[in-house]
Amino acid sequence: MTVALVGAGPGDPELITVRGLARVRAADVLVYDRLVPSELVAEAPVHAVRIARGDLSQAQVNATLIEHGRRSFVVRLKGGDPFVFGRGGEEALALADAGVPFELVPGVSSIAAVPESALIPVTHRGVSQSVTAFAAHDVEALDVAALARVPGTLVAFMGGARAERLAQRLIEHGKPASTPAAVISRGTLADEQVHVTPLGALVAADETPALVVIGEVVALRAALGALQRSAA
Amino acid sequence: MTVALVGAGPGDPELITVRGLARVRAADVLVYDRLVPSELVAEAPVHAVRIARGDLSQAQVNATLIEHGRRSFVVRLKGGDPFVFGRGGEEALALADAGVPFELVPGVSSIAAVPESALIPVTHRGVSQSVTAFAAHDVEALDVAALARVPGTLVAFMGGARAERLAQRLIEHGKPASTPAAVISRGTLADEQVHVTPLGALVAADETPALVVIGEVVALRAALGALQRSAA
Repeated sequence: MTVALVGAGPGDPELITVRGLARVRAADVLVYDRLVPSELVAEAPVHAVRIARGDLSQAQVNATLIEHGRRSFVVRLKGGDPFVFGRGGEEALALADAGVPFELVPGVSSIAAVPESALIPVTHRGVSQSVTAFAAHDVEALDVAALARVPGTLVAFMGGARAERLAQRLIEHGKPASTPAAVISRGTLADEQVHVTPLGALVAADETPALVVIGEVVALRAALGALQRSAA
Repeated sequence: MTVALVGAGPGDPELITVRGLARVRAADVLVYDRLVPSELVAEAPVHAVRIARGDLSQAQVNATLIEHGRRSFVVRLKGGDPFVFGRGGEEALALADAGVPFELVPGVSSIAAVPESALIPVTHRGVSQSVTAFAAHDVEALDVAALARVPGTLVAFMGGARAERLAQRLIEHGKPASTPAAVISRGTLADEQVHVTPLGALVAADETPALVVIGEVVALRAALGALQRSAA
């Protein structure tokens, strides 16, 4: 049988792909992460075995996929895209090593979709021609000097508590403190929160997973927000 | 009425989102780009007015969206994600200025999905913790010094003909010529082509739109390719 590594998208359950939803609906076994919307877990067949990742280690997840994948159709449902800060590559390698066939079904990554939900285009002609996304769980481990210098938009995947330290380090390395920034939590969901501030005024929030967007594109939000979006 | 700016995804028609497909199926007017799969254009209702972007200028596209958007439900279907090198921000600003409500429906961007289709994870623990995507239509206009220094994976959206010049400039600025690179054209489609080479041996191809991936993650493709993926 096969394991499908499927991206669930950024949070809103309607932002899974057509193929991704079809795979979930065909699953014998569904292994899913904490950030996957419950509406998508509910789409698996009634008979399907549902396995919440919970506190399983990565090695345990790999072993689970291999064991079930040998005899059942397994869907491994991950937030965003499996290959963007999602350890999908590690799971795919483990399956390849074990001789279990796998399929990759990409998902809408938070990189662009979460800023978009907050009316921030990560690229915009004349403003930003590039976007750099990075995981910032450990700010001290980052090459902040290079990140401060790269042109275009920065998108940091991190806990909100580290935002202030990231801002501080970027400014130390020459990023202007006046650069617009936005902290977005619960992006694409009904209770999405967006906090816009100059980089120099970013303060630490709680440990809730957040996306931090840094760059001149953040200033476009005001112009785009002149109109309410129609309800989804 | 409303204009929905919808991402069609990277090429494979099943990689549109569930919401994106629902919007296409409800369209009175569908305005679509050349790179949008014909299968998705065919999903619009029989009565829908179909407008191929063709040679329309960006100003003409904006005017078309505003004019039809005042009285009809318009779906503006764009390849990838509307806000990633897609000028979706410009169209949204024009609609906001004209007082026409709009909705944003993100799509699967090629940034991660096209490398993924070629079995290349843009991030991978211990190999790459960041990804920088940029448009490289004009290599001479890029801040190549900064791009050569930023850690992690580089993803260039460009015509294949400029790939050699990009490689040359990155190497001039210190990127090792041995860095693995891949040129992917027709990504996610049945006739996808992947060409893997060290950066120093990248040669210009034809002007076909291509995604160029540069970084150590490209080397994971061989390990992941040990098994055929199951057919989609």
